Amino acid sequence: MLTKQLVDKIFETSYGSFEESTILHAKKSLLNWLGVTVGAIEHKSIDMLLEVSDELGSSEQATILGRNKKTDISMAALINGTSSHIFDFDDTHLDTIHHPSGPIAPVVFALGETRNLSTKELLRAFILGCEVELRISNAVYPSHYQKGYHITPTAGCFGAAVAAGILLNLDKEKMVMALGIAGTQAFGLREMFGTMTKPFHPGKAAQNGLLAALLADKGFTSSKQVLEAKRGFANVMSDSHDLTKVLDKWGESYEFEKNAFKPYACGIVLHPSIDACIQLSEFATPEEVESIELTVNPYVLELTGKDQPLTGLEGKFSIYHTGAIAFLEKDAAEEQYSDEKVNASNTVEMRKKIKPVVSEDISEEKVKAVLKKTDGTTQVVVIEDATGSIDNPMTQEMLNKKFTKLCKPIISQDKIDEVIEKTMRFEELDSVNEVIGSLYNERILMN
Amino acid sequence: MLTKQLVDKIFETSYGSFEESTILHAKKSLLNWLGVTVGAIEHKSIDMLLEVSDELGSSEQATILGRNKKTDISMAALINGTSSHIFDFDDTHLDTIHHPSGPIAPVVFALGETRNLSTKELLRAFILGCEVELRISNAVYPSHYQKGYHITPTAGCFGAAVAAGILLNLDKEKMVMALGIAGTQAFGLREMFGTMTKPFHPGKAAQNGLLAALLADKGFTSSKQVLEAKRGFANVMSDSHDLTKVLDKWGESYEFEKNAFKPYACGIVLHPSIDACIQLSEFATPEEVESIELTVNPYVLELTGKDQPLTGLEGKFSIYHTGAIAFLEKDAAEEQYSDEKVNASNTVEMRKKIKPVVSEDISEEKVKAVLKKTDGTTQVVVIEDATGSIDNPMTQEMLNKKFTKLCKPIISQDKIDEVIEKTMRFEELDSVNEVIGSLYNERILMN
Repeated sequence: MLTKQLVDKIFETSYGSFEESTILHAKKSLLNWLGVTVGAIEHKSIDMLLEVSDELGSSEQATILGRNKKTDISMAALINGTSSHIFDFDDTHLDTIHHPSGPIAPVVFALGETRNLSTKELLRAFILGCEVELRISNAVYPSHYQKGYHITPTAGCFGAAVAAGILLNLDKEKMVMALGIAGTQAFGLREMFGTMTKPFHPGKAAQNGLLAALLADKGFTSSKQVLEAKRGFANVMSDSHDLTKVLDKWGESYEFEKNAFKPYACGIVLHPSIDACIQLSEFATPEEVESIELTVNPYVLELTGKDQPLTGLEGKFSIYHTGAIAFLEKDAAEEQYSDEKVNASNTVEMRKKIKPVVSEDISEEKVKAVLKKTDGTTQVVVIEDATGSIDNPMTQEMLNKKFTKLCKPIISQDKIDEVIEKTMRFEELDSVNEVIGSLYNERILMN
Repeated sequence: MLTKQLVDKIFETSYGSFEESTILHAKKSLLNWLGVTVGAIEHKSIDMLLEVSDELGSSEQATILGRNKKTDISMAALINGTSSHIFDFDDTHLDTIHHPSGPIAPVVFALGETRNLSTKELLRAFILGCEVELRISNAVYPSHYQKGYHITPTAGCFGAAVAAGILLNLDKEKMVMALGIAGTQAFGLREMFGTMTKPFHPGKAAQNGLLAALLADKGFTSSKQVLEAKRGFANVMSDSHDLTKVLDKWGESYEFEKNAFKPYACGIVLHPSIDACIQLSEFATPEEVESIELTVNPYVLELTGKDQPLTGLEGKFSIYHTGAIAFLEKDAAEEQYSDEKVNASNTVEMRKKIKPVVSEDISEEKVKAVLKKTDGTTQVVVIEDATGSIDNPMTQEMLNKKFTKLCKPIISQDKIDEVIEKTMRFEELDSVNEVIGSLYNERILMN
């Protein structure tokens, strides 16, 4: 019954029922998502996806944001979704390490561009798609994630189907089917972390969920109880779970609003360590550092234990490199994760001094950092609420700056300002095409 | 290292190394696959997939077999793969209940049609794609399947990537990447059994594996140890496994040759019961039957326990309906699984007399059937090797008849004979297009 009850809740939740704060958070999420997506759109892995798209003769339907190119909506969902996760700089639901916008926003943009849909309905689809995937994540976390599943694409398949289903105007019965067709496609191994296949995951989840809704729209059948059945998603893909979390306090509180924006271009679990190392850099020069001991939850090191990263991408999964550059450069933006930076001799020297220590007594959002200096003195910093966390969120101004920094290599400052302005009054726009039109890459044209 | 070693083995295995018997089995498998694919190609779920394909503006690259229509190769892999599993009449690797051709053959046909490839290379890709997925199935079966995964699409993603990778001429490093990109897309819940989403599984696996190989071809990166890593396929998706089975006796014996063809249009686990009920029908009229007790392995009933099926599709997952029609009609072909037949009063009456009993002491390939008559007498039949099993395989003549029966509603008898003749000398053909050209649906043209 759970899957059907969930669909009932989705149908009950109108745009009018959203608080202002929820709508504001949705717009911030879209702005953040657009920034990371457009910012990475010239990455070589996107070139590769576009080559495949060309090889398949994909039709021109929806825009690859910031590339001045269109593919069919399925490929656009895949490619824009992939781009948004390339920098590991997208949003994060801290309780489940799920990146909510990645599988949902590309579906909303692809269908919004190709069908005549109101921006309010797009916001509703976006919010509910995120809400559903996050509630499903809550139900299976941490068991599912510990097992080795990348929770963003597994739960994301469901959310993408919900967003697409809303925008395709599915009835309740078809929405149940869409969830079934999407849920059986749930996929994604954490083993892929540190490779191009990690960002491919949210894109593929978007594509899978969209396909599920398109098929359900035509009458395709599936299980009516994909979430709760004996051989359904929760039982098969998680050793333990609590499915009551899927509907618990629906309408009273939004998991979606627990979605945090990252100030740093790496996994959220490293953010406390970055804050700590930036603070510690006030107390010593690199030469004066004997060691920086970072006491973190075992999970943190499991995710970021690459002690000898060779590429910028691997650097994002290295607490050693990340601690080093945070101390050296007082930031951890995309430029701190270039291949050059990872292999620079001063970074390599510094990262040898970063000493992670694991403790079950410290939660994933915190770090205790101890700087030991060569003169025998020590300095301790404890981070309880890292920048970008729920209790210490990025301000609108910080978000605008992040968006600007990300998009600057791709689109002009005029366009950047336009996109920020339009996205922050998204519900007033006639069409999402007003935003998409501003994401025009003039540099490509000039080349 | 296992994933890399597997790729080494694939590269070592040339067409010339295959025994005649392996090549013959491959051609029989392709014939069987073409029969079930073309036979179901006018099913409404294929209509739905084609509607979605049209909606995406799919380009005309590869043929939907028996539909006189082309889509891009990705959609063709999805749609032909789906069609092949609709009747549940495709081939089965009995040790793992895996249907090997479904995820592989559509990739071979799509790439074979669109690239100028020798039919020998197509056979090699087909055999090795099947061999890899079956060896991976062996490694995780039964734990993986018991957990609730549909093993055909999970392992099938790997096999499809191997077949596509061979045909795209990937080097070893890229083949390792293709396996990684494919393996992370492994998906499929047994909860979908009895719905259109079950046949969708092998099609989607074909599509996922093809995408993996296309991306690897462009340089896309993934894990180099998708099979064996701590967070890789085997550890995440199976509670227990034996990965030595992936390479064990490679080149000495082919799992692929343990691939059996079904004489009946339902899950292989029901075939012993069908043979038994057909035999028992010699001993009583329906009215004289008090009960037919079928003692089967618990697995069999778990898969086929629908006691009140309402549709033909549900009938295929019902030992009750299947036993009834086998007794009443001495067959279990597609026509015994029509919606009408499932709801006919004499079938419903008869199925109430079918009494499954489970016992761990009987293996999945066997059945002990006891007919109790209203006059108090009993008759016992034990089936050790059902028709279509490895020790009692379908003959070439039986296969030709099966192909003919399946294709008759779609293509003319001349064309049927042509396809059989060409497929059985596949390695001599200049191109797979000689077969595809004969699969022309004249009836669609006339309508």
